[in-house]
Amino acid sequence: MNTRDSLILQNARFYEAFENADLDALDSIWLHSQRVRCIHPGWDIIVGWEAVRESWERVFASNAAMKFSLRNVAAEIHGKLGVVVLIEEIVWRSGSSVESGSVLATNLFEHDGKTWRMIHHHGSPLIGEKDSAEGGSFRYN
Amino acid sequence: MNTRDSLILQNARFYEAFENADLDALDSIWLHSQRVRCIHPGWDIIVGWEAVRESWERVFASNAAMKFSLRNVAAEIHGKLGVVVLIEEIVWRSGSSVESGSVLATNLFEHDGKTWRMIHHHGSPLIGEKDSAEGGSFRYN
Repeated sequence: MNTRDSLILQNARFYEAFENADLDALDSIWLHSQRVRCIHPGWDIIVGWEAVRESWERVFASNAAMKFSLRNVAAEIHGKLGVVVLIEEIVWRSGSSVESGSVLATNLFEHDGKTWRMIHHHGSPLIGEKDSAEGGSFRYN
Repeated sequence: MNTRDSLILQNARFYEAFENADLDALDSIWLHSQRVRCIHPGWDIIVGWEAVRESWERVFASNAAMKFSLRNVAAEIHGKLGVVVLIEEIVWRSGSSVESGSVLATNLFEHDGKTWRMIHHHGSPLIGEKDSAEGGSFRYN
């Protein structure tokens, strides 16, 4: 169904797959197309499903188990395109301690008539105080 | 016109306004709506045109003059929604020296029947080697 609820659900499935390091689930969520794009925090833009899938393999291989809480999830539908903007609150184990961080994400999904397929993921680190929108000593560059 | 060329042109106008610190130009490019969103590199998500406009005032006040080169500009139209993904190569003066950096951007525009109006800007720093998509010692968090 081409609804906001189904869009939010598919976005949640993406993070469930992420949390579970489940490539098979990502296979069913992402559109398998040369035009999909993925930006992991700090990485360069990755283009095309084959390269994007390979990047997720590397993310899953290099990271400790992570737990996601999604905050401020804003979902909008523009025809067949779904836009989801949110804050990922991530908690992970590092040795014997627990650490946390925030990632801002812009996720785009395209409806294929049956379901929402992810075509774009842009994740970027939230730097500085978690609950401040002030920017502090920020410079654009 | 609801064309890819007009979308790329409007995206270029956005960076021209940015380079010139031209709030009036931004006024004519952004949609004046409560649902627009802006993520400056490292900042939290800013929601609504009033807050977004105020954030640009702060960016313009705090930054030295910047020159933008746009690289790998990918533009797609989904009905009334335009998606532009690109790399901003930025050069700026810092005292007597010249510095440079790269920002990855996801820009969304909505066509209002006449022109493309910006509804979303997500900028994030490219960390590490400029031309590497490897991610190096990257961790998601």
